[in-house]
Amino acid sequence: MKKRTFPLEKVYGLIEPGPVVLLSTSRNGRPNVMPMSWHMMMEFEPPLIGCIVSNRNYSFDSLKSSGQCVINIPTIDIADKVVGCGNTSGATVDKFEKFALTCQPATQVDAPLIDECYANLECRVVDTKMLAKYCMFVVEVVQAWIDPRVKKPQTIHHLGYGKFMIAGETVKLKSKMR
Amino acid sequence: MKKRTFPLEKVYGLIEPGPVVLLSTSRNGRPNVMPMSWHMMMEFEPPLIGCIVSNRNYSFDSLKSSGQCVINIPTIDIADKVVGCGNTSGATVDKFEKFALTCQPATQVDAPLIDECYANLECRVVDTKMLAKYCMFVVEVVQAWIDPRVKKPQTIHHLGYGKFMIAGETVKLKSKMR
Repeated sequence: MKKRTFPLEKVYGLIEPGPVVLLSTSRNGRPNVMPMSWHMMMEFEPPLIGCIVSNRNYSFDSLKSSGQCVINIPTIDIADKVVGCGNTSGATVDKFEKFALTCQPATQVDAPLIDECYANLECRVVDTKMLAKYCMFVVEVVQAWIDPRVKKPQTIHHLGYGKFMIAGETVKLKSKMR
Repeated sequence: MKKRTFPLEKVYGLIEPGPVVLLSTSRNGRPNVMPMSWHMMMEFEPPLIGCIVSNRNYSFDSLKSSGQCVINIPTIDIADKVVGCGNTSGATVDKFEKFALTCQPATQVDAPLIDECYANLECRVVDTKMLAKYCMFVVEVVQAWIDPRVKKPQTIHHLGYGKFMIAGETVKLKSKMR
């Protein structure tokens, strides 16, 4: 793995633009992964991320019982794998094998880093009060990794029913927003 | 206004890709607006959106006391206005006048639609249980508007400290994801 650690106080800049992410979990030693688009930053540091994971997804129970996950951020070059992960269930398929995704061990949590993703956020669940009503987990990023070779990540952004926007050009404006 | 109503069940496709939005509110007959990037879809229909609004923002009290807002989605052509709204406070500035933004009356809520934005979502606050801990409002979209002339909206996506990604090309993949 060619990745470097990434400062936790900068994590918001990865999540805030709204990329589809791959949520990886592990249960009884068996890893699983699903695409997720319903997430938001909730705090800068330590970085808190709100995540909606439907209880119809196989990953829901893994995340609930383990309290740990990795948020992996893919780019357009593996979009077919991302879509494949969304069209299958971990209940019947080993998605890592089927879609040739490479697991790497995380350092802080028991869930795999996906090597093909340019950034990986190791997370722990810190609040489940919104779980019953909204299927919402609040997770804290405890360790972040980034591939320094990826300068302008072409993240993908779900527009519904298989239509995705690919991250385009960047501009610098005179914003005082953090 | 050249806008048409937009089906509530399709609203998620506007918010899910993570655009910077302009949150407009009204208090004592005085409208205000701020940019917001920390939001996520929480339910398809009726559409629920989670929003983090810092209590250091002037809009926080307006939203809390009125329980109503409009989420307006801007594109790159008014990025300077969006940034201007983020660099000033409604406590001292009439942002609509300063940045030449046009208010239109909403139909369901007491907060203005911003005409220069290609989509406008009229919202009511439906849950404030996460307000004390996370400054998180859950709002329900009760009426949505879209400019049918805007086919490929070049939304802007905040990457931190004034750097923005502009929505790029779109692709259609064989996803079964809604």
